Amino acid sequence: MSQLLRVQNFTVSSDGFGAGEGQSLERPFGHADPGALMSWAGATASWPNRTDPGGSRGLDDYFTRDFAHGIGAEIMGRNKFSPHRGPHDPAWQGWWGEEPPFHTPVFVLTHHPRPSLTLSDTTFHFVDGEPAAVFEQAKEAAQGKDVRLGGGATTIREFLDADLVDTLHVAVAPVELGSGVRLWEAPEELDDRFHHDVVPSPSGVTHHLFWRR
Amino acid sequence: MSQLLRVQNFTVSSDGFGAGEGQSLERPFGHADPGALMSWAGATASWPNRTDPGGSRGLDDYFTRDFAHGIGAEIMGRNKFSPHRGPHDPAWQGWWGEEPPFHTPVFVLTHHPRPSLTLSDTTFHFVDGEPAAVFEQAKEAAQGKDVRLGGGATTIREFLDADLVDTLHVAVAPVELGSGVRLWEAPEELDDRFHHDVVPSPSGVTHHLFWRR
Repeated sequence: MSQLLRVQNFTVSSDGFGAGEGQSLERPFGHADPGALMSWAGATASWPNRTDPGGSRGLDDYFTRDFAHGIGAEIMGRNKFSPHRGPHDPAWQGWWGEEPPFHTPVFVLTHHPRPSLTLSDTTFHFVDGEPAAVFEQAKEAAQGKDVRLGGGATTIREFLDADLVDTLHVAVAPVELGSGVRLWEAPEELDDRFHHDVVPSPSGVTHHLFWRR
Repeated sequence: MSQLLRVQNFTVSSDGFGAGEGQSLERPFGHADPGALMSWAGATASWPNRTDPGGSRGLDDYFTRDFAHGIGAEIMGRNKFSPHRGPHDPAWQGWWGEEPPFHTPVFVLTHHPRPSLTLSDTTFHFVDGEPAAVFEQAKEAAQGKDVRLGGGATTIREFLDADLVDTLHVAVAPVELGSGVRLWEAPEELDDRFHHDVVPSPSGVTHHLFWRR
């Protein structure tokens, strides 16, 4: 079995943006409201940050609980890890507190060096390199499991352009952003290279599932 | 976290039958063609019996690969295990060969005693008892994980009647059987007790996802 590169549960607005404009410490998704984008996942029983025992167990829950299934490492862009640009602030440890939801090695793409950082069972490695080389590093760390490409939109575009992505799950939320960090003009852009299932959910998002032709 | 009882990937005909009439050694699904009922799962990359490396990775694959996710034991009816009725034939070891696809303890409901049978990492226990008592046994064997209720239709009905089922995933295949072992007249029968997502798949089946209200 070859190891796949998989985009899992990446959410964009109806007009194709993965985040708004003006990311900052106070607004990690810029002018976008992450609660509105991600409410489809937040309402499910498998959402890791649930504080009450309820939650739906229908279609959206399958995607939420599949997030880490068979995944041995993640690759993410610098701008997913941090609101800063330029050299790293060594005090910044990511958005996720002492227990990040990754539970695997995570490779953060950055031109600025930084020592690896371990929080609970997640270790962040800061790497500079072409997508293909970083994917090789991540595959080795994943020990036979698949690698999740965690985003943001710019990072996913880079790996799509390098033809490295095997499967993509993108949830399109019923929210318009107008501007921001774009994943696509329309999902059909990928149809020349990928099979494509379109699955509307009762929650109002539409799940787009792509896998290589 | 409480342990759930989950029906996963159970497939019925458009008229509600989980198997046809006249189960026998030659025809484990009676007059129904199991290939036609299960082709939605057989076409996916995660189908365990694939002999070629291809297979789809869209919606149907999520259900196929979720089959064993978080599951620590299965409960099945005698008629899923064997085509025989009455006392067990000790030479019969199930339909699945030396490597059954369960990889957990399996509790087979039967009024006829038989010693436990281990094949690879699956052990079949033959148990007589009320659904609630058998579910307790299976939960203990599952060591904190959920229990899958494997069918057939009659067994699922018994556990539904005892109000023990937490989630059901039933795929309705575009195949009419006319007669056989019935799960329901229509999926909406369960709507008084369960939330219900209806998810048509591009493959032609419709996935029905139920979880307790």
